[in-house]
Amino acid sequence: MNPLENIRIVLVDPKYGGNIGAVCRVLMNMGITDLALVAPHNKLDWAEARKLAYHAEGLLEAHNVFQTLEEAVADCTVVAGTSARTGMYRDHAGLPREIAPVVIDSAAHHKAALVFGREDKGLFNEELAVCTHIINIPSSELYRSLNLSHAVMVCCYELFLLAGGGSDYKPPEERSPEAGSAMRERLFETWSAMMLETGFCEEEKLGHMMLGLRRIFSRGKLTENDVRILLGLAKQSRWVAGELKRRQAK
Amino acid sequence: MNPLENIRIVLVDPKYGGNIGAVCRVLMNMGITDLALVAPHNKLDWAEARKLAYHAEGLLEAHNVFQTLEEAVADCTVVAGTSARTGMYRDHAGLPREIAPVVIDSAAHHKAALVFGREDKGLFNEELAVCTHIINIPSSELYRSLNLSHAVMVCCYELFLLAGGGSDYKPPEERSPEAGSAMRERLFETWSAMMLETGFCEEEKLGHMMLGLRRIFSRGKLTENDVRILLGLAKQSRWVAGELKRRQAK
Repeated sequence: MNPLENIRIVLVDPKYGGNIGAVCRVLMNMGITDLALVAPHNKLDWAEARKLAYHAEGLLEAHNVFQTLEEAVADCTVVAGTSARTGMYRDHAGLPREIAPVVIDSAAHHKAALVFGREDKGLFNEELAVCTHIINIPSSELYRSLNLSHAVMVCCYELFLLAGGGSDYKPPEERSPEAGSAMRERLFETWSAMMLETGFCEEEKLGHMMLGLRRIFSRGKLTENDVRILLGLAKQSRWVAGELKRRQAK
Repeated sequence: MNPLENIRIVLVDPKYGGNIGAVCRVLMNMGITDLALVAPHNKLDWAEARKLAYHAEGLLEAHNVFQTLEEAVADCTVVAGTSARTGMYRDHAGLPREIAPVVIDSAAHHKAALVFGREDKGLFNEELAVCTHIINIPSSELYRSLNLSHAVMVCCYELFLLAGGGSDYKPPEERSPEAGSAMRERLFETWSAMMLETGFCEEEKLGHMMLGLRRIFSRGKLTENDVRILLGLAKQSRWVAGELKRRQAK
């Protein structure tokens, strides 16, 4: 089973609809679908929530509501709460990257929850006491407190990567295969000729120039298509140089 | 020099003030202060931007505006653009965690830029061509496109961690030192006595029960304060059990 399907995101007493909507978008981006709200504020701006959910409205509609955190996580084994503050319970706190493996391992077989507190006051101590783990999201001393959806983004990003989310997303290789050595050498030969024939450099400086050029073209992969373009370009310059020479000779 | 001070976040043609504000909050959370806007939409909602910047209004006010991406990154060595799409230029794309070291290494000595495109269309090919690196933020097939401030969050979080942001944030150890073996054994003795005296279990099952209890208390660190609490609790129960026995004997 995909562990992400066993992960529940729990927002305790959220105040702003926009934040709930933004969280829905994050969850859909990160392949998580289970959203629970605990005692949501009764004057939530649901229109704003739908606006920010943008393409994740279905996930927003499907959220569950609980009156207490205990009820929201009753069926979960690992319950990881987030906290920017230090204080009691902080002795088992860890960075998102440290806690993510615990959550993913557990979510392979059981429900697991990530719990986020109020926008202004976070989770209360009695709520942190319900959590088996505490996540501290690292942030600058200049400004510790993250926006709710940004905190959810960081934690879910770590879970998504660990669940293999990044691995299937390695950008595909260029459709054109990488150029082999022979093709590359043909390129350098043609460029050498071009540099001499156009008068770009003199014979005695060519070796030095070509070393530089080789270094430039070796920094990234060079595909067969790339080489064809570079070859064509050099051939064209050689033709121009040749034409000029013929006319000068007339 | 702190490499984060050399990092510039460039937003190309952003449409929504709220997103710009949310990005400012992210930057301040992640210790980055240099924000550049390229050709920002002329009907931007700046009131919304200030609202979302929340405590990062100063950073919002200090942003620089450029007419082209080339001008915005003219003094930068590494220029990393973000793209959800595949297409030309994608052959040098990498995950945020792969590109972050390149950016941080460069930012130790030079200006480096992270470039984010329009909310709807991202960066155009001619803009990606200006970038030395391309970042693909991994996301679910269900919904690839991240909100602008969430994309900035993920990238800046990786930079912040790499620049050592997480390391100074390890939550401090409990002030109470971890309990030594002797103290732990005193705890188990007292609990054994308590379990017998309160009639919780019989002599022949005590060994088995205590093994279970030892396992429970060994899962996490046990501080001296923890032990004092657990000891006090057991002593109280023993006193209650003793009192009861005395009264029954009368």
